Amino acid sequence: MTNNDINYYLQENIQVWDKLDKDQKNDLIDSSMINCYQKGENLHGKESGCIGTLFVMKGRLRVYILSDEGKEITLYRLYKNESCVLSASCVLASINFDVFIDAEENTEVLMINSAVVSQVMQKNLDFECYIYKLTTERFSDVMWAMQQILFRGIDERVATVLWDASIHSDDDLITLTHETIAKDIGSAREVVSRMLKYFESEGIVTLYRKGIKIKNRKKLRAMIN
Amino acid sequence: MTNNDINYYLQENIQVWDKLDKDQKNDLIDSSMINCYQKGENLHGKESGCIGTLFVMKGRLRVYILSDEGKEITLYRLYKNESCVLSASCVLASINFDVFIDAEENTEVLMINSAVVSQVMQKNLDFECYIYKLTTERFSDVMWAMQQILFRGIDERVATVLWDASIHSDDDLITLTHETIAKDIGSAREVVSRMLKYFESEGIVTLYRKGIKIKNRKKLRAMIN
Repeated sequence: MTNNDINYYLQENIQVWDKLDKDQKNDLIDSSMINCYQKGENLHGKESGCIGTLFVMKGRLRVYILSDEGKEITLYRLYKNESCVLSASCVLASINFDVFIDAEENTEVLMINSAVVSQVMQKNLDFECYIYKLTTERFSDVMWAMQQILFRGIDERVATVLWDASIHSDDDLITLTHETIAKDIGSAREVVSRMLKYFESEGIVTLYRKGIKIKNRKKLRAMIN
Repeated sequence: MTNNDINYYLQENIQVWDKLDKDQKNDLIDSSMINCYQKGENLHGKESGCIGTLFVMKGRLRVYILSDEGKEITLYRLYKNESCVLSASCVLASINFDVFIDAEENTEVLMINSAVVSQVMQKNLDFECYIYKLTTERFSDVMWAMQQILFRGIDERVATVLWDASIHSDDDLITLTHETIAKDIGSAREVVSRMLKYFESEGIVTLYRKGIKIKNRKKLRAMIN
């Protein structure tokens, strides 16, 4: 990818791009890198520090927290052209928690160096405000994840995960594993497998080795709320 | 309280006050109200809509979420001179969850009308950025609460609540009820009472009708992490 391509991509995906001056634009472009990750690869963890602000150019990322005992809770997923500021949490003085980020498909990421993001934030109030706004958006996602885990029944939670995944699927075939769904809803794989068998017996899904096919969208939708 | 007093209070407590022009300052001052709430009173709920941006002038507020079945999870507390933007979530387009706010003591609140906050945010980028920053700070608090609930043992969680409360207490006497502690940690009152009795048997606290007295701070501290 040339600097021109990066310029074009950032212009399309950073809402306040026009408010940056030429030097600020060039600083962001020059410190951008394209990185590719294999499906399943971890690209941010407790020890990776502040890797930078991310944009998903292709593929899908999962952002989650991890306990000392290895329990995972999915906070949200990032799809094409979505950005993640929590991977550059060092630029946000008030964010003092660490997230983990894995590639769920082969994923291409544009990464802007966090020191440069931080510098441009200090120089340009529009850009600073933009970064804080992005963070606030994720706040809602996280609250949603938290309420799912704390308050709702397993059946509804599994149905919600399938429904959300189906929106991003062309053929109603969902390639999430039972393990992944269990992590998403903060439950055990066995519990999810049991629930999916129940869904199958109800004619809502068909279970294949390679994934879960939704057979009856209406019935699935009816399980949510 | 006169408009002059309000002016002085806002100047002290809104970091970007000097960046506002005279009209913007006057709009905020004119739309400010002082409200008093009794201990235990609810000042924001699902139906109260967008009451405004709050500053605690005296007392203490508890911010929490509530499930359909009435289960509560404490997100954070607001002490003197702390502000809450989630009570004016309508000014933040990306915040789409509702919080509940109760007074935990007799509490005096300065409340700025949310429509006016919204107007000033649109006119003044410094102020907009300031509001988003305040929101981002609470994001960290909420993540902390979430990790407490999801990942840690009951003993550690109860000890953490006592420790935090003791920081704001002059005489090591903590007036939280077992019920309140249970809500804080997302557990049942019985579980907390049992744990407190265990703490008493260990010489860490003494239990009175009116509260919990910390006897051994060092031992209490050692239970956390």
